[in-house]
Amino acid sequence: MNDAVSITRDLVRCPSVTPADAGALGVLENLLKAAGFELHRVTFSEPGTEDVDNLYARLGNSAPHITFAGHTDVVPVGDEAAWSHGAFSGEVKDGFLYGRGAVDMKGGIACSVAAVLQYLADNGGKPKGSISFLITGDEEAISVNGTVKLLKWVAERGEKFDHCVLGEPSNVEVLGDCIKIGRRGSLSGTLYVDGVQGHVAYPHRAANPVPDISRLIVAISDEPLDHGSAQFQASNLEFTSVDVGNTAGNVIPAQARAKFNIRFNDNHTQDSLRALVEARLKKACGNRIRAHIKWEYSNSNVFVTKPGAFTDLAVSAIEEVTGRKPELSTSGGTSDARFIASYCPVIEFGLVGQTMHQVDERTPVSDLEKLTRIYRGVLDRYFG
Amino acid sequence: MNDAVSITRDLVRCPSVTPADAGALGVLENLLKAAGFELHRVTFSEPGTEDVDNLYARLGNSAPHITFAGHTDVVPVGDEAAWSHGAFSGEVKDGFLYGRGAVDMKGGIACSVAAVLQYLADNGGKPKGSISFLITGDEEAISVNGTVKLLKWVAERGEKFDHCVLGEPSNVEVLGDCIKIGRRGSLSGTLYVDGVQGHVAYPHRAANPVPDISRLIVAISDEPLDHGSAQFQASNLEFTSVDVGNTAGNVIPAQARAKFNIRFNDNHTQDSLRALVEARLKKACGNRIRAHIKWEYSNSNVFVTKPGAFTDLAVSAIEEVTGRKPELSTSGGTSDARFIASYCPVIEFGLVGQTMHQVDERTPVSDLEKLTRIYRGVLDRYFG
Repeated sequence: MNDAVSITRDLVRCPSVTPADAGALGVLENLLKAAGFELHRVTFSEPGTEDVDNLYARLGNSAPHITFAGHTDVVPVGDEAAWSHGAFSGEVKDGFLYGRGAVDMKGGIACSVAAVLQYLADNGGKPKGSISFLITGDEEAISVNGTVKLLKWVAERGEKFDHCVLGEPSNVEVLGDCIKIGRRGSLSGTLYVDGVQGHVAYPHRAANPVPDISRLIVAISDEPLDHGSAQFQASNLEFTSVDVGNTAGNVIPAQARAKFNIRFNDNHTQDSLRALVEARLKKACGNRIRAHIKWEYSNSNVFVTKPGAFTDLAVSAIEEVTGRKPELSTSGGTSDARFIASYCPVIEFGLVGQTMHQVDERTPVSDLEKLTRIYRGVLDRYFG
Repeated sequence: MNDAVSITRDLVRCPSVTPADAGALGVLENLLKAAGFELHRVTFSEPGTEDVDNLYARLGNSAPHITFAGHTDVVPVGDEAAWSHGAFSGEVKDGFLYGRGAVDMKGGIACSVAAVLQYLADNGGKPKGSISFLITGDEEAISVNGTVKLLKWVAERGEKFDHCVLGEPSNVEVLGDCIKIGRRGSLSGTLYVDGVQGHVAYPHRAANPVPDISRLIVAISDEPLDHGSAQFQASNLEFTSVDVGNTAGNVIPAQARAKFNIRFNDNHTQDSLRALVEARLKKACGNRIRAHIKWEYSNSNVFVTKPGAFTDLAVSAIEEVTGRKPELSTSGGTSDARFIASYCPVIEFGLVGQTMHQVDERTPVSDLEKLTRIYRGVLDRYFG
């Protein structure tokens, strides 16, 4: 049976702790090859990182082209003795399927494969356009040899995606409560304040950078960057460290530094944000404090798939199966959607994230069945 | 000739870089033994430190008892190639005597010995009371096996000091401009702020200690501890370091800490100061910020020799020789006077400090001659 529960179990039984594959992609290859997909197993390398296997599988040559994206790698199991059921058992008990990756996100991939196979079976084995799977083994750790390279590899073949569903566990509490349609960008920097070193007994001959950087941290932290936008919560800046490293208790130090990270919404670009923070810094420094910021390179720009025909179609499929109207959310951490958004509109919808990365990660079997019906509903509407 | 210049030169020629003696105490022993002093060469030890030689020499058994205190150890020479004259040469050129310790403070010791020998020669070899020398080889570094122990050793013999002149280079620009009559105390602590660790993308689930400790640093630094007292400048608190050590740019840290040092005057005791800072911290924290201070042990209490007969006598001797009325100062760093002050009133008066601890440390020969006359003036008035 190529149902979502058995595919999930087969995937969970592969101990594919990132970046190991452990046979997971092979499970998908066998199913998709039998359905007529053209398979591409692609291995990417980078100095200083482990090689990672990726899978691109496509059926059909015409538009529209919808791709189901995901990752088969999982986070480590932690204390395996604490699990009620083997972390790689895929055991079903009292209506739940247990195992690392059950919700994040082997379960999501299994539902998309099951939905596609059903759709093809009901439609003469061919989509009215193209369906593909874009699956990586490098999402949970550094995300260097995964989706970002696979997208480029596909584009260089001259292929084009029209829409993408990424099956990450987007729901917060119950299936159908949330579609992620975007993510904030992320930008980091280090603030440096230069003082004048001296002896604590002669403070008038020195300039202490410690109270000065403290003033700047307060000034920069206190004023909001914005008050949110149509699709996003407010941007936010957090100082993650402040350091001097002075071990001499009688010496006023010469320099202090503080690291910060900004999660920003579509009120900003990286450039406008840098200009805004620099202006606030300059104001807080006045003519007295000597400070500057070193910005880090960031490939994490803000993106959003604006509500429209594609999101409507997904909402409709979710409402039909669950009776719930999902929130179109842009909250939370990062995912491979930040890479996909450069190629086509992308939404994230999968299982419920509550147990992800935890001991006893598990999903209700009924959610696997419902999510398969939702994906099938997406396909019917997309090609309908 | 037992004049100050030749005694200084003999002392400078002993390379007594702390805690080495290199024959320096022997130079004094020879001179004082010939003048009838009872000599005590005392070696003190402490686990983890080098043994250090000290010299206590006394002439006379009756009160009043004046002691000349000092140290024969010196700081390292630094880049000896940069010196115009050998760092341990004691060479006299163009009216200056060169060498490490010339002003800090072999020159000061030499002047006191020369003055005492002259006084005795003019007064039948006996003082109208007692004169002693309290000389250590452990002042420039850790000050553990030096004056602090020698004072206790003398007290345990049942001896009592009435007054002390410490020959540190007290003058700032010209001989006669400054007597040090006290020093501020020193107290250090570390401020800890506890937050709640979390992901930067979910700041509402965390509590960032970085802006909070910044607020506390500003609040505690900004309000003066006092506005000075009759003998002292204002007390001062400096934060010398602030540290988190968080290397994860996407994590809000759990704790931040900041080190501070306070130099305090006679408006405070250590206890009252701790209570004051704790109260200000509590106010700045309000009900929201969780913070506490760990205080370090300090043996550096504030002390002052209040202006009176003893300081008047020194001022008069200085005015007679230099024509200057010295400031009675309590500014600057620490010295062995902080230990002596527990036993008797102490003033610091010696050479001009400008070149101390520098390359080409040197003193005008004329200052050695004048300081000898000043010390002689002190003795005449003290026993007059």
